[in-house]
Amino acid sequence: MNHFLVFQSDFGLVDGAVSAMKGVAYKVDPGLILGDITHDITPYNVFEASYRLFQTVNYWPAGTVFVSVVDPGVGSSRKSVVAKTRGGQYIVTPNNGTLTHLNAFVGIETLREIEERTNRLENSLLSYTFHGRDVYAYTGARLASQTISYEEVGAQMALSEVVSLGLYGAQQDETSVTGQIDILDVRFGSLWTSIPFDMFRALGFEFGDYVEVRICNNNMPVYMNRIVYGRSFADVRVGEPIVYMNSVNHMALAINQGSFAKAYNIGVGIPWTLSFTKM
Amino acid sequence: MNHFLVFQSDFGLVDGAVSAMKGVAYKVDPGLILGDITHDITPYNVFEASYRLFQTVNYWPAGTVFVSVVDPGVGSSRKSVVAKTRGGQYIVTPNNGTLTHLNAFVGIETLREIEERTNRLENSLLSYTFHGRDVYAYTGARLASQTISYEEVGAQMALSEVVSLGLYGAQQDETSVTGQIDILDVRFGSLWTSIPFDMFRALGFEFGDYVEVRICNNNMPVYMNRIVYGRSFADVRVGEPIVYMNSVNHMALAINQGSFAKAYNIGVGIPWTLSFTKM
Amino acid sequence: MNHFLVFQSDFGLVDGAVSAMKGVAYKVDPGLILGDITHDITPYNVFEASYRLFQTVNYWPAGTVFVSVVDPGVGSSRKSVVAKTRGGQYIVTPNNGTLTHLNAFVGIETLREIEERTNRLENSLLSYTFHGRDVYAYTGARLASQTISYEEVGAQMALSEVVSLGLYGAQQDETSVTGQIDILDVRFGSLWTSIPFDMFRALGFEFGDYVEVRICNNNMPVYMNRIVYGRSFADVRVGEPIVYMNSVNHMALAINQGSFAKAYNIGVGIPWTLSFTKM
Repeated sequence: MNHFLVFQSDFGLVDGAVSAMKGVAYKVDPGLILGDITHDITPYNVFEASYRLFQTVNYWPAGTVFVSVVDPGVGSSRKSVVAKTRGGQYIVTPNNGTLTHLNAFVGIETLREIEERTNRLENSLLSYTFHGRDVYAYTGARLASQTISYEEVGAQMALSEVVSLGLYGAQQDETSVTGQIDILDVRFGSLWTSIPFDMFRALGFEFGDYVEVRICNNNMPVYMNRIVYGRSFADVRVGEPIVYMNSVNHMALAINQGSFAKAYNIGVGIPWTLSFTKM
Repeated sequence: MNHFLVFQSDFGLVDGAVSAMKGVAYKVDPGLILGDITHDITPYNVFEASYRLFQTVNYWPAGTVFVSVVDPGVGSSRKSVVAKTRGGQYIVTPNNGTLTHLNAFVGIETLREIEERTNRLENSLLSYTFHGRDVYAYTGARLASQTISYEEVGAQMALSEVVSLGLYGAQQDETSVTGQIDILDVRFGSLWTSIPFDMFRALGFEFGDYVEVRICNNNMPVYMNRIVYGRSFADVRVGEPIVYMNSVNHMALAINQGSFAKAYNIGVGIPWTLSFTKM
Repeated sequence: MNHFLVFQSDFGLVDGAVSAMKGVAYKVDPGLILGDITHDITPYNVFEASYRLFQTVNYWPAGTVFVSVVDPGVGSSRKSVVAKTRGGQYIVTPNNGTLTHLNAFVGIETLREIEERTNRLENSLLSYTFHGRDVYAYTGARLASQTISYEEVGAQMALSEVVSLGLYGAQQDETSVTGQIDILDVRFGSLWTSIPFDMFRALGFEFGDYVEVRICNNNMPVYMNRIVYGRSFADVRVGEPIVYMNSVNHMALAINQGSFAKAYNIGVGIPWTLSFTKM
């Protein structure tokens, strides 16, 4: 533990919910250093929460405690857990799929169930709707401040009990690789695919090569074009599309200073497939 | 005082205004620990500012200094004050209604008027539009850092001088309780009412009971239905409505993973009344 | 250096990008104190980034290090630099116009080019799209923590090499002053002009005087009216327009509790000119 406590949620920042969680943390230990990933996860979207953790966790020091609260099942029988990653970070979260990407791509070393009767803000037993404040922020703060040890969180669980959402993965043949669109780089409208850079490189692409790109929605083609493979946006002119490796080492597709997603009405998830073919 | 200084405003985060306030605070004392409630209060909406303080203040440690700047009357004769709550937090704010909910539900112990000539960023006398930076952030930082004592803020005022907005309250008869819609849980579209949990419980409701819910706009019914009373969203199916106690111990109304406010075009404030009747 | 590291970008806060930059900074030195200007700069809008720095930098303590990443040319030959302002703050940024306002209105004392091979997060050489994380946050953190000195950033550059965007300035004759609309006070819809307060005052205006205001779009008048010159919004009634000096000592135009920009569809930049005439 290193006194860093980092929050993520789908609460937004328009009300006092995030601030109440942070106040609870400082009440546990005023020496904590608090941070945020984002609080603009699409409401209830556990896949996004999982992806944003994957994008961020390893850049923080070992020992950092993350509290991620996207919790459509608050009040249900879903368990509350703390996962320890291979990099030594801790994730306090409902066990509802939020750990999917970390489990697949970063590695989870151990998992413990939060014993909620002891790890719970006092006088909060009648409150059933804000576990983010009453259980997760409180437990995360006690862990980050070493008020409790990782063992005192609660009993160890088998790693097989990590709830995982389906991941899209990618399929390769001799001349092409096919995957799905995981998520948008929302602000810039880029498509981030489930295709790892290594699989793409294995097809023999070099910077400057043209790539045959095909995007389908429910198997109906919605985009087919040849696009240059570049290092970064500056390799193409303003308004031109580009295939590139994103900041988490997967293949991505963008329009320099435009929005690929808006230009062609492209979305994310199961209906959307994307292939890169070597010509 | 404990070196915590927490900001709230209607400035948004798209420009440099909030950052300028924080810079001013760190110039007073680089050892301060800064936080935020929200900067997305609807512009000029003092009622919202008051509510968000109520939702948050008590979760922060005693001694925390809050600076809340929603100030439609900047430059008018409205006074600038510091209130000390019963919980030992300090609120630096224009005395324009921002203290309404804290006064009614948390308790204000003492009130002082900010003597603005001494408690003002140097070289800011010609600046008339940004008291948030020049007076409130500066005074809050000096108070939180113990550069000045609470007494040095300025002369004590009578508690009767706290400017309060009308509160909606709630009326009860043998089988029903009626109140108003204070505010939305914006992100999730839930309706947060002015009806305290204790008044609702006094009607004899148990978890799982059905509640007759009626919502009117200017006395015209816009929603009438029987809704289950539950602990939290997980007690109903996705898409189903639920009556529950929110995180500030008032009654609320939501659709599990939907938006009640959007589904029925429900707003907040005086025109909107809501009643719960025991069947 | 004083351990303050303050971020600005056009990344938004909906994903993990800003958090990854902050994690990188804390890995360099967990004792840093991190802050933000805004991450909602309009994507690729270097002029806005420049203006927000101007609005903010001087309110932070000398020695503060700012990292500003609005970088449409990431991956191009644009240089990465650190500027030291006359006030003793440091700005880590692509040299693409982001320093325009600081150069013109605050003063840049020296400029150094970041030597990117040594000042780069390890294992990031294959990453071409996220210099904000891999170069700017990393270098800013090393500078703010005194891991490297300002000299170790890289070779000094001539001040004439600061890339500057055109500034609008203002022209004055005997009875009027004309300028352009630099930027909106987005949240409140006020117009912030390029006309300095001193130029306006030189025309002999006193509080309470009426000002002949004319706004043109591509030389076509879109607004002509007499508006009172006041200290702040409270000098006019709700809904009335007002001419005033903004918080960076330039002239501005607003509607009390309304949005001037929305009311008359006014935008920013070269096509928009605005004049104040003494009657």
